[in-house]
Amino acid sequence: MAREVAEQPQALAATLEALLPLRERLRDLADGARDVLLVARGSSDDAAVYARYLLEVHAGRRAALAAPSVATHYRAPLDLTRTLVVSVSQSGSTGEIVATQEWARACGARTVAVTNAEGSPLAAGADLALVTRAGPERAVPATKTYTTQLAAMAVLGTALAPEPTALDAHLERAPGEVARLLERREGVEAAVEELAGARDVLVSGRGLVMGTALEVALKIEETCLRSVRGLSYADLRHGPIAVVGEGLVAVLVAAQDGPLVEGMAQVARDLAARGARTVGLGGGDALAAACSLHLPGPDLPEAVAPLALVVPAQLAVEALARRLGLDPDAPRGLSKVTQTDPGA
Amino acid sequence: MAREVAEQPQALAATLEALLPLRERLRDLADGARDVLLVARGSSDDAAVYARYLLEVHAGRRAALAAPSVATHYRAPLDLTRTLVVSVSQSGSTGEIVATQEWARACGARTVAVTNAEGSPLAAGADLALVTRAGPERAVPATKTYTTQLAAMAVLGTALAPEPTALDAHLERAPGEVARLLERREGVEAAVEELAGARDVLVSGRGLVMGTALEVALKIEETCLRSVRGLSYADLRHGPIAVVGEGLVAVLVAAQDGPLVEGMAQVARDLAARGARTVGLGGGDALAAACSLHLPGPDLPEAVAPLALVVPAQLAVEALARRLGLDPDAPRGLSKVTQTDPGA
Repeated sequence: MAREVAEQPQALAATLEALLPLRERLRDLADGARDVLLVARGSSDDAAVYARYLLEVHAGRRAALAAPSVATHYRAPLDLTRTLVVSVSQSGSTGEIVATQEWARACGARTVAVTNAEGSPLAAGADLALVTRAGPERAVPATKTYTTQLAAMAVLGTALAPEPTALDAHLERAPGEVARLLERREGVEAAVEELAGARDVLVSGRGLVMGTALEVALKIEETCLRSVRGLSYADLRHGPIAVVGEGLVAVLVAAQDGPLVEGMAQVARDLAARGARTVGLGGGDALAAACSLHLPGPDLPEAVAPLALVVPAQLAVEALARRLGLDPDAPRGLSKVTQTDPGA
Repeated sequence: MAREVAEQPQALAATLEALLPLRERLRDLADGARDVLLVARGSSDDAAVYARYLLEVHAGRRAALAAPSVATHYRAPLDLTRTLVVSVSQSGSTGEIVATQEWARACGARTVAVTNAEGSPLAAGADLALVTRAGPERAVPATKTYTTQLAAMAVLGTALAPEPTALDAHLERAPGEVARLLERREGVEAAVEELAGARDVLVSGRGLVMGTALEVALKIEETCLRSVRGLSYADLRHGPIAVVGEGLVAVLVAAQDGPLVEGMAQVARDLAARGARTVGLGGGDALAAACSLHLPGPDLPEAVAPLALVVPAQLAVEALARRLGLDPDAPRGLSKVTQTDPGA
């Protein structure tokens, strides 16, 4: 896992170089499509959540996440004409994702596959495949395949925006920002200490970095074998905040800019007042000042920040697993390709 | 809370009687609309999740849940013509839900409000208001306002289906099924014992009863002040299952029929093999046989089962809170109307 985390600057640069030239084909494929439906599970689902916000906020295109059971179990026919269906799977072989893409085609959708495996069933069955250039990933927890999926999502989101090249200068800087975060490891050891002593852990984000929060929660959970929730700060205020108390460590995720930083800093202050410890991830000075500890994020605007923002958390999770005496590469009870209905 | 739980048969019957005659107006309003966008938070969000599946599976109409921050924080203009936007709020006064409905109108949507408060800002601002007949709800945890929202969702889902009256015989039986579950309390005391001794609790469902699972998780969390996750069994297999062990009690939710009962029974067996205890909620004989304990559900088909399926869990949660020395009516740290950005 550590080696694959370290490979991300190269993997991201290679993926952007390979996929940015496909924007015109994506635009043609989406011509006349009013909305985008995303199909994914696990870390791929966290990448899809980023795409959902990027498409709505940056590209002005409606986007939603599909419920695969509607396709695989209920076999409900829906009208998916004028819809671009984007299916995301690292292996390109997850049964329910492949089946959902087939259903979408039968329902009239145009289809895009995002996968790390050229020639996989998912890639072969799509109108267009965005093949990420992460190289083989051997550790069970996804790292470089996740961030390269985010790069593919940025290509998609900018392709469908009124000005496709508006974010290119920032996208080009993303691999360098990842390299800088990997090298500096600022705050990582302190965050590991904090998380190792926590009785409960939750992760919160919102909007464009919501997917990052979900991915950080999943990563801690599957790698360090503890139950961790990821939820938006709005949903946190709607119930779960009542159970916050001493022994809770909340990882709070924000970009350095955008309309949600202040709300997240306010959540940090409210959680601290209830006795929780808070680890800020990104969020600039506003979030750093409001949190017990801080993991600085990348110098990238909110729309592309997710490509690098997860990196300090990956470093902390990998170190935390080792500190707990666990193997971050092969967590107990998980395999690389998940069958959601094993008997089916 | 106990009184409001007991009032549900009457509240459901009154709501169905008031809203079923509005199906033709709903159909007219949705004429030409290809899809439905749902706007909600908290328990209302759990009701919206039911609507999402009912609309896709039963009515063949695409449905998705909106991300309110796209409206309230990013103020992104989207094309919502040919879209029916359904906003759900018990009070009809939650700031972000009212603001999101206004945004939807400005984006060209037709709007339906589902609320328990006639004359509320949400009802006043919509093209059509489905006003639930729950009467005033004083306890902070939503019970009768939640199940009457489900009744409103069933009215919506059947109104847009090819044969609007196909489920009416079952809908008419729902209040009676709730009354029967309230009277029998089968398995409730045993479930309270089990949950009281749990180190960790999670709740899982999928498809049409996914919203029920989310609501049961939220109810245990806000009423009994412990952290509880609700997640689909597919997502459970994608990571969280790795952390399952002794001390976990999993509440597993299923209807008595439909394509997901077998998969849920398989999850029950897998969780038991990992040392967890399992409480089945509904799911008929198949789930009962696979679980440590069983709370029988209603004798209703999957499409309308959610109107009654939550009831045994409400009884267990109320009793569990009292057993833990907590006040189920006024949980610490929560209020009846939540502002997700208090300073804004």
